Amino acid sequence: MFESAEIGHSIDKQTYDAQVPALREALLSAQYQLKEQARFPVLILINGIEGAGKGETIKLLNEWMDPRLIRVDSFDTPTDEELAHPPAWRYWRKLPEKGRTGIFFGNWYSKMLEDRVHGRINKAGLALQISQAQRLERMLCDEGVLIFKFWMHLSKDRMMARLESFRNDPLQSWRINPLDWQQSKTYDKFVRYGEYILRHSSREFAPWYVVEGTDERYRSLAVGRVLLEGLQAALNTTEDERRTSQPHTAPLMLDLDRLGLLDSLDMTQALEKAEYKYQLATEQARLVQLLRHRVLRKRGVLVMFEGHDAAGKGSAIRRITGALDPRQYRIVQVAAPTQDELAKPWLWRFWNNIPERGKFTIFDRSWYGRVLVERVEGFCSPEEWLRAYSEINHFEEQMVDSGIVLVKFWLSIDQDTQLERFKEREATPFKRFKITEEDWRNRDKWDDYSHAVADMVDRTSTEIAPWTLVEANDKRFARIKVLRTLNDTLEAAIEKER
Amino acid sequence: MFESAEIGHSIDKQTYDAQVPALREALLSAQYQLKEQARFPVLILINGIEGAGKGETIKLLNEWMDPRLIRVDSFDTPTDEELAHPPAWRYWRKLPEKGRTGIFFGNWYSKMLEDRVHGRINKAGLALQISQAQRLERMLCDEGVLIFKFWMHLSKDRMMARLESFRNDPLQSWRINPLDWQQSKTYDKFVRYGEYILRHSSREFAPWYVVEGTDERYRSLAVGRVLLEGLQAALNTTEDERRTSQPHTAPLMLDLDRLGLLDSLDMTQALEKAEYKYQLATEQARLVQLLRHRVLRKRGVLVMFEGHDAAGKGSAIRRITGALDPRQYRIVQVAAPTQDELAKPWLWRFWNNIPERGKFTIFDRSWYGRVLVERVEGFCSPEEWLRAYSEINHFEEQMVDSGIVLVKFWLSIDQDTQLERFKEREATPFKRFKITEEDWRNRDKWDDYSHAVADMVDRTSTEIAPWTLVEANDKRFARIKVLRTLNDTLEAAIEKER
Repeated sequence: MFESAEIGHSIDKQTYDAQVPALREALLSAQYQLKEQARFPVLILINGIEGAGKGETIKLLNEWMDPRLIRVDSFDTPTDEELAHPPAWRYWRKLPEKGRTGIFFGNWYSKMLEDRVHGRINKAGLALQISQAQRLERMLCDEGVLIFKFWMHLSKDRMMARLESFRNDPLQSWRINPLDWQQSKTYDKFVRYGEYILRHSSREFAPWYVVEGTDERYRSLAVGRVLLEGLQAALNTTEDERRTSQPHTAPLMLDLDRLGLLDSLDMTQALEKAEYKYQLATEQARLVQLLRHRVLRKRGVLVMFEGHDAAGKGSAIRRITGALDPRQYRIVQVAAPTQDELAKPWLWRFWNNIPERGKFTIFDRSWYGRVLVERVEGFCSPEEWLRAYSEINHFEEQMVDSGIVLVKFWLSIDQDTQLERFKEREATPFKRFKITEEDWRNRDKWDDYSHAVADMVDRTSTEIAPWTLVEANDKRFARIKVLRTLNDTLEAAIEKER
Repeated sequence: MFESAEIGHSIDKQTYDAQVPALREALLSAQYQLKEQARFPVLILINGIEGAGKGETIKLLNEWMDPRLIRVDSFDTPTDEELAHPPAWRYWRKLPEKGRTGIFFGNWYSKMLEDRVHGRINKAGLALQISQAQRLERMLCDEGVLIFKFWMHLSKDRMMARLESFRNDPLQSWRINPLDWQQSKTYDKFVRYGEYILRHSSREFAPWYVVEGTDERYRSLAVGRVLLEGLQAALNTTEDERRTSQPHTAPLMLDLDRLGLLDSLDMTQALEKAEYKYQLATEQARLVQLLRHRVLRKRGVLVMFEGHDAAGKGSAIRRITGALDPRQYRIVQVAAPTQDELAKPWLWRFWNNIPERGKFTIFDRSWYGRVLVERVEGFCSPEEWLRAYSEINHFEEQMVDSGIVLVKFWLSIDQDTQLERFKEREATPFKRFKITEEDWRNRDKWDDYSHAVADMVDRTSTEIAPWTLVEANDKRFARIKVLRTLNDTLEAAIEKER
């Protein structure tokens, strides 16, 4: 979920200086329009990792916009009066009125997250808190409140480096937090539960925006742009339209610096032939061994492949099945849905094919077609693929909860490699069937697909079902990475039950 | 929540025989239209009390409609295959296709309800199950499935009588159920948790319909009519319209036999003056005593009055405050919202006035204005007052969870009594200010108000915050019932903490 916010987004000073004046002016003007219309209030929730610029962002918004129309509230230790009322009372009394903006720092999400990290509530308790928050937000939105939820993020390394620098800076050393961020375990837990919360509380009426906080300029522009787009959309919508349309049009991650998730892969990785042969034999033997384990005989295994055309999905699958008895596995090839399948909810055909306990199923393409080809080619509406992310997360959650080991691969190649392989396919008689007009057409939409892939990974790579991005320019490297990742995951599942 | 389904609804044979032929024909024709359009499937969930006619209803639907287009599935003990898959898999595989109808008997709600009654899951566990079910239903509706959820109800006495009759009937004695319904405790738990589930899972896209199951004719007509109206609404709506409009137009309870909740009150109840004086002194002394208790010093008390115009709210309140020191209580009089209040979500002005720990607040009219006067007079949209029920339930839940003792009174008089009191007020100089043009206008809408009151009680009388309906034709009777109910509730709250 945080993949795209850990790749070091940044904006150079020149670009930043060029963009800020117009952004500030537009924000100010939207703010005054908001005040004049006085039709709805704006509520901004700021959450995320320590040191990712939460406080700085609030400061910046007050500089960029008119601070008289913004009210910042920080909900730390409750006052006596607050303790004498229901928990939500402290938030209700600070709600901004129509035409104004409220920023809630240390809000209901901070509370539940810290409670979970400290073990004060368990999994079901957290689910209950999230559903309470959802009811509150649903009601606020129904009453017209425009909600922005920001998660300011930092990778673990960057956070550690940052805390180190704070410690040596007298101006920053006041930063104290009930959570001991110096501990690496704290970060892990915080991110794990944070991801769970975001996954379950990102709704079309109040989605989360994840912003990488490493670079101050990137962070500032990202927050400013999300706010501006959402505000303008809501201001230009009539009351009636707002009831049915969504003000949140910005994508989960803004493409401000043109640095996409797939661009951050090191595509030069490769393996020598001899080394490959040795590792292939090793990993295949390991797979055979692992699949025999009694733990896995009680659990299903589902391995799923998506990837660019000609990225080598088929050959990667063959390196898995090559080691196995055909009765041990089943391959599900996913193509366009049949008439019967179209008569059911779209996920039905996948539910129909998940492995039962003790079985091993390989999906060649999958339910992710919904947010890839169906999105890019317009086979389903934006509304449909937007809600598909949470439908998919729910689907995978249920599989993992019931014991299925789920492994998801994206096989990535660059455009040059794809061209090479397409040409080679056309030149080789027995490979010619593998290349069609459609493949060439898809190629023209490379950027659209890249975008869709990044969105997909950001929204569906979860702690319980992470994506593995495989650098597949070199087929040997890709096959070994696939096999090894699969084996590592199976091993971890077995270890966990020991 | 089940109030209106415990008053003995029934339909006489003549009315029934006159209505059924047209209803059957319309249902059949809707069913064929559904098949021809093949745009969406229908899913019917049947739940409720043992003996309330669940099985009979399914049988009837198959008789009335074309059974070839209906598929009934009963989810009892899971099969081996089902156990080898995630829990929802058994439901997915049985989903009806577009154009057809599926009836799920013993569905996800039966499962979670039984698990809770048997103590296999706790409160948070139940909340988690409900939120899982909501995600499933949300997805199904987004995919076009038209869902009907029926709760077949019986009061405890009627259920007991029914089970008795089954026992003596060889054709019925096969009825065995994992729950031991003979135990009165089983009924109580089942209804308590059932109400919790209904309250949290009744959404605009898939609301619950509560049907009293005592009288077979009433039950059959009620289910048939809800189905027909919902089906026709959905069939006559285009795909695009369906995305934004709701197919469920029927009210929670159908007014088939013209027997409303308020009609079921015994309005002749009265008290002699001497008896009244004695009881008044007794209850007032009891109140003073109770409010001094250390348990209540740590909890807030909120007493709330709604009722017909001239039902005697003011004088009932004075019988409470008469016993107390003015520093002990606060009266909140609710009128039309001010400009400042209109700038916040509608519940804000009530949140603002709830008692803090140790305080006693009396509301003269309340947040229920939203679903009474604002609904009837059109001061808010149907959409707004419809969602207000669940907003209110959530609001009250939070108060009760935080320890507030909440007591809700509806003071009911009949039309003749009201007319008498209006005339008396006009004739008495110091009472004349109490009667306005508006009161006379409201009187013209007596039936609309009665309807709104019944809906309100059905949807917001919950185990944690029940309504007390007070027969107020006789003022003395009403005042004593109010005081005694208040005292009993306070006593119960104190007992519970002992």
